[in-house]
Amino acid sequence: MTRAIGVDVGGTKISAALVTEEGLYRTPRVLATPATDAEAIEDAIVTLVHGVADGQHVDVVGVGAAGWIDSERTTVRFAPHLAWREVPLGDRLSRRLGVPVLIENDANAAAWAEYRFGAARGHRLALCITVGTGLGGGIVLDGELLRGAHGLAGEWGHLCVVPGGRRCACGNRGCWEQYASGTALARDARELADTAPGFAEGIVELAGRDAEAVTGADVSAAAANGDLAAIELVTEAGRWLGQGIAEITSVLDPSIIVIAGGVATVGELILAPARSRFAQVLAGRRHRPHPQIVAAVMGADAGLVGAADLARLRQNRSPAEI
Amino acid sequence: MTRAIGVDVGGTKISAALVTEEGLYRTPRVLATPATDAEAIEDAIVTLVHGVADGQHVDVVGVGAAGWIDSERTTVRFAPHLAWREVPLGDRLSRRLGVPVLIENDANAAAWAEYRFGAARGHRLALCITVGTGLGGGIVLDGELLRGAHGLAGEWGHLCVVPGGRRCACGNRGCWEQYASGTALARDARELADTAPGFAEGIVELAGRDAEAVTGADVSAAAANGDLAAIELVTEAGRWLGQGIAEITSVLDPSIIVIAGGVATVGELILAPARSRFAQVLAGRRHRPHPQIVAAVMGADAGLVGAADLARLRQNRSPAEI
Repeated sequence: MTRAIGVDVGGTKISAALVTEEGLYRTPRVLATPATDAEAIEDAIVTLVHGVADGQHVDVVGVGAAGWIDSERTTVRFAPHLAWREVPLGDRLSRRLGVPVLIENDANAAAWAEYRFGAARGHRLALCITVGTGLGGGIVLDGELLRGAHGLAGEWGHLCVVPGGRRCACGNRGCWEQYASGTALARDARELADTAPGFAEGIVELAGRDAEAVTGADVSAAAANGDLAAIELVTEAGRWLGQGIAEITSVLDPSIIVIAGGVATVGELILAPARSRFAQVLAGRRHRPHPQIVAAVMGADAGLVGAADLARLRQNRSPAEI
Repeated sequence: MTRAIGVDVGGTKISAALVTEEGLYRTPRVLATPATDAEAIEDAIVTLVHGVADGQHVDVVGVGAAGWIDSERTTVRFAPHLAWREVPLGDRLSRRLGVPVLIENDANAAAWAEYRFGAARGHRLALCITVGTGLGGGIVLDGELLRGAHGLAGEWGHLCVVPGGRRCACGNRGCWEQYASGTALARDARELADTAPGFAEGIVELAGRDAEAVTGADVSAAAANGDLAAIELVTEAGRWLGQGIAEITSVLDPSIIVIAGGVATVGELILAPARSRFAQVLAGRRHRPHPQIVAAVMGADAGLVGAADLARLRQNRSPAEI
């Protein structure tokens, strides 16, 4: 039995747990992410792995990270919210931990977890779209992650859905994640509070009555509570989600699309408008089977579960298969 | 040696040739497409195959068709310009011809030809974008066509590049092929002739001085002749081509994109603005390797070459591989 630890490195926290071959784990250990210091992130990962191992032998470690990973799955090319630029993280961690370490994009790792243990089991071509602060995703085809020629497939948060539209942190305008993400919800809510403070009251209340402090999570929570303004914002984000899913479906023709990430926790409030818009705009919609659009089931720790599983599978492959 | 005949069924003509294992062939036999009569199309294919076989034994036939083919590669689900709706074309032709017949989407077949014998040889993840009357394409990953869960991957002509934009024959607005295709060039040229007849003169001249009769091919020909108005229209189409390529690249991360089809015959006149726009808008452009964007080399018969090769490869596989 290969003992595998999965680690998830997000913009605000790093979590780690031992994951079984069935994808089971105990509540992860967590540390805050020292986002601006690459060495401190490594130190935190090493501390967490040692803590989780608790003196027992470990065979492999898989790390899911919010960044662009090369196709060898060892180097972080670039991470928008973390201090990594062309960092050979896998090799460095492997030397310090004394075991093979696989690095994977966190959304890819989450997609893999949904395919192996969650909502996408048994599908030949599954997409997982992670709607959190930003918007990312992963593609599983014929039992393998489709990683692209340079490891960047599934990075569709910056699909241009509105030419000349909202400015994005990437420098472009009209990126999908400016219309369907926690960041988009927060932006919309602040704009609403500015122009229609009475209507936005329920949302602003949740943010400690500070309109400037409203987050996507506040809007999601307000929507789940039945707040009409929040439901309107989530519905609009859902429509944009469905629009982008239609674009990706015309490229890849999947049989299932799993919606994961913090924003997806509102469930049908965002899924129903997404499905509705998707069915309205999919090219050739009357002449083709439509994919299912479903909620993720693996929860917030999907990334570490997937990363551990990928590390274990790579380890257990015969050399000829690698 | 497996003797394979390739057939290409387009909106206006059907062509067929015997294709060697090296992708070589003689000038194809051609018949006009009886587009509105499904049985007559079958008759024409049978006539052409018998003509090409010329009394010799044939092992397999591959048919590339401008339509949506199911994942078994036997049934045409839908063809926008031909009289096929859920037609089991493969089985019907196979009975009449007495040999196995594989049906493939024509743009997929062309992509396969570029991968096997043309511009995409040796690439692990290659896209081929066919810019003709409409805009289609194919994806080759790890030596296989990526066909999607229902056989419709690579059908990206109806990506929405401009929400609320130009009306498309599919019923939506803003589809990519309304901005980058022969149809788009013709539409732009007619509009230009309407509002600035002097500037459009060189193009209209090529269409027998009938502005309403201008085709995409007229615009391409005028651009190749150095006509400034035509070059402007082709440049604009090239920019939209590059925009859409950036969207697809953020989904799939290919290492090469091959531009095929009638409009692509203008070469750098459309490729240069496509590359330029692509490099301006690709998400994370400073942090990732860019794919090559190159012209196809297989020419107008790529579809029949690819279809014959696919049929031969399926035939030569051991049953365990199928």
